[in-house]
Amino acid sequence: MDPIRLLVSLDQNYIPQLEVLLASVYWNNPGDSMEVYLLHSGIPAPALEPVGRLCERMGYSFYPVPVEDALFARAPIMKQYPKEMYYRLLAARLLPPQLDKILYLDPDILVINPLRPLWEMPLEGRLFAAAAHIGRAELAGNVNRLRLGTKAPYYNSGVLLINLEECRNSISEQEIFRYVEEHKKELVLPDQDVLNALYGDRILPLDDAIWNYDARHYKSYHLASSGQHDTKWVIQNTAILHFCGKAKPWKPGYFYRFGALYLHYAHRAGQFFGLKEI
Amino acid sequence: MDPIRLLVSLDQNYIPQLEVLLASVYWNNPGDSMEVYLLHSGIPAPALEPVGRLCERMGYSFYPVPVEDALFARAPIMKQYPKEMYYRLLAARLLPPQLDKILYLDPDILVINPLRPLWEMPLEGRLFAAAAHIGRAELAGNVNRLRLGTKAPYYNSGVLLINLEECRNSISEQEIFRYVEEHKKELVLPDQDVLNALYGDRILPLDDAIWNYDARHYKSYHLASSGQHDTKWVIQNTAILHFCGKAKPWKPGYFYRFGALYLHYAHRAGQFFGLKEI
Repeated sequence: MDPIRLLVSLDQNYIPQLEVLLASVYWNNPGDSMEVYLLHSGIPAPALEPVGRLCERMGYSFYPVPVEDALFARAPIMKQYPKEMYYRLLAARLLPPQLDKILYLDPDILVINPLRPLWEMPLEGRLFAAAAHIGRAELAGNVNRLRLGTKAPYYNSGVLLINLEECRNSISEQEIFRYVEEHKKELVLPDQDVLNALYGDRILPLDDAIWNYDARHYKSYHLASSGQHDTKWVIQNTAILHFCGKAKPWKPGYFYRFGALYLHYAHRAGQFFGLKEI
Repeated sequence: MDPIRLLVSLDQNYIPQLEVLLASVYWNNPGDSMEVYLLHSGIPAPALEPVGRLCERMGYSFYPVPVEDALFARAPIMKQYPKEMYYRLLAARLLPPQLDKILYLDPDILVINPLRPLWEMPLEGRLFAAAAHIGRAELAGNVNRLRLGTKAPYYNSGVLLINLEECRNSISEQEIFRYVEEHKKELVLPDQDVLNALYGDRILPLDDAIWNYDARHYKSYHLASSGQHDTKWVIQNTAILHFCGKAKPWKPGYFYRFGALYLHYAHRAGQFFGLKEI
């Protein structure tokens, strides 16, 4: 079996979350091989060493890929959103040319079941596979479709299976930068808005309950599935639990249902791999 | 290091829960050795085989100890409480005479941190170490002290470090059976009431927040600790998470905080060890 290639992109502050994410991948994908690519802008080598050692202990390959600022010389950068946000959209340009696809994951994610079925999903010429969130986010989805003038669902950019081959032919940073420049006043989540506005009709829709479960919206999933998606269903079926939004399980006072599960992974990752705890 | 000796006592219906308990012990006591004793009344050998295989994969020794009914010929058995309940109190009589101590655990428990510090706690002549529950249970504790005429806290019998050597000298089944016979109309939880009424003054008190955390009472612990015992504290410090009471995390509709954590252990135990899921 080919290794699953994971892509992450983050700044130094999110390294502890990356370690928790990797521990969750490791424990719930036993025997599967992974290559981990990290697109970053100048995280110093000593800060990356623990991640390298962690991957080594897991038997995963680790490829940090520093991205030069020059690429973004003409990119509109907004205060609240760093340039790292563009990296997933430009992965095809930034990663080694021999890679044909990669699975991008946000660092506020816990992987609780095998990723292999997603990895092997045929992309059939689409640029990305992604999930639109249901629940409260669904209403927002309609607003976002109106806002961006798109017809497709409003996809979340936190989990993206990226067809790198196809992206190399279809995506240009000029197009992205131009779009952001022209719409910067309306953009709410620039990378996600760009993904939807420019490429929404070339995205393969994923079931978010399995591949990008919004951990805040247990009640919405439960309701939307007529009670089928209870805690047990999530535990048995959801592979990617995404702790979206401002409330984070590693911050005090988090009260959503899967908070204790996240903290337990953080604790075990800390203990087992000798890491500093979140 | 001497192996930690665990004692469980259950009927066949609780074998899946035992497997989850063992998986949680295994994952959170890495590198530590365990011996598992199971006191039971006639669970057929084929039903015990999966437990034996599970222990073998974990490198744990497994000792099923069938208990003959004859011992309970003169024991008062109440409808809602099976004779298995007496086993933990009579462990010294039922287990091999060379064992000096053992750690009894209810099967509705998840072990989320190392047991070694409890195992090595000096018993200093006491018969048991046990924890009294705080919170709503604390009020009940006062009622129970009145009811049983005891001065010590009302200890929960779900986690017991048992001083087998000392119990061999001090505990007789006649005394226990006589007590139950004389008080059977007042007894609410017979084994726990007997433990408290007869041996309450020879119990070493344990911190329940660490060694017997009542998973229903997050809010009470949080309040009683002036906010110190939040989810993160529990995950980092609590070793024994006890899913007391009628609501159980493996039943539909469980809504307490650590339910998803329990179900995740049940799911992983099922997947990793090829067991039937709860």
